[in-house]
Amino acid sequence: MTTERTTDYPIDPIFTDRWSPRAFDASSMAETDLLTILEAARWAPSAFNIQPWRFLYSLRDDHCWQSYLELLDPFNMSWACHASALVIVLSDTMISGDGDRPQQQSRTHSFDAGAAWAQLALQATLLGYQAHAMAGIHYHQSHKRLSVPERYRVEIAVAIGKRAHPSVLPEGLQGREQPSQRLPVREIAFPGIFPH
Amino acid sequence: MTTERTTDYPIDPIFTDRWSPRAFDASSMAETDLLTILEAARWAPSAFNIQPWRFLYSLRDDHCWQSYLELLDPFNMSWACHASALVIVLSDTMISGDGDRPQQQSRTHSFDAGAAWAQLALQATLLGYQAHAMAGIHYHQSHKRLSVPERYRVEIAVAIGKRAHPSVLPEGLQGREQPSQRLPVREIAFPGIFPH
Repeated sequence: MTTERTTDYPIDPIFTDRWSPRAFDASSMAETDLLTILEAARWAPSAFNIQPWRFLYSLRDDHCWQSYLELLDPFNMSWACHASALVIVLSDTMISGDGDRPQQQSRTHSFDAGAAWAQLALQATLLGYQAHAMAGIHYHQSHKRLSVPERYRVEIAVAIGKRAHPSVLPEGLQGREQPSQRLPVREIAFPGIFPH
Repeated sequence: MTTERTTDYPIDPIFTDRWSPRAFDASSMAETDLLTILEAARWAPSAFNIQPWRFLYSLRDDHCWQSYLELLDPFNMSWACHASALVIVLSDTMISGDGDRPQQQSRTHSFDAGAAWAQLALQATLLGYQAHAMAGIHYHQSHKRLSVPERYRVEIAVAIGKRAHPSVLPEGLQGREQPSQRLPVREIAFPGIFPH
């Protein structure tokens, strides 16, 4: 039984249609579908249009699939193995210098990469997929095995796939296979100063 | 003259329709419009559904408007003064403890807040507004004047409004009033390992 998402204000249904299932059908994904999903991420806003996001990916039929799966913790691996694509989202922690400006630390690289991730997830939904982000990954191993330069931060991994019946999941996860709820708007948004 | 945005893959037009103008018409915004825009942010994905985003806001007719404007650097203040709403996006750097788990630092608070920001911006566009994020703000002053607890990070400020003719802008900004371009997909997304 699915818990309905009801909104307090009339937003576009794309935002509530997008959610993070774990039951995927283990089908193959055309690379153009994945690139369409990443194209939406490409157009995200970022500070000074620096576009600090980078994406490494594996499709389930390619030779990297197993090594990508091994970057996930055992819990995530138990369901994400049925996804069609895995994406590692990176952000560039540095702003490259130019003639007038020395190289410097970015203050917004994670925030900007998060914006790109949201656009990725929404376009995935629009294309008939769902994207599920995972913070439970082996960060150090991801850096090393994917040859990620020091200046990039590994943010999250994303499993993308087409939904399957919850019965494909380990039994303990089947009951959790429904869209999550949210804090009320009045608990996250405040006029004026921060309430105490 | 507007530079067209062309995409390499067929994404939903919402992603290219959203951009960051500076010419706003200084009209009043109904609070329900702003809350609808924030409702979309509310439904963003976050690690463990912790929802670390918080939003402080001022509408241009309220008594906080001037003090919000003063949190922006002089450049941003020069155009954002014509916006209809200003929003300060915060993220909770801590994950509260519960019975089993001590309070701990969040690894993804900025990234998750960035996802919420993208959804905010897209819903603004869908509602006939545009949202323009600003990293050029007085962070320390924002903390202090808005009474933001230490555990929250001030991420960005956002100006939201309805577009006006570029002639409302200071002369030097009028020529820049067009949607920005992006790096090609092949420079931000890579199969397998990071290219060197």
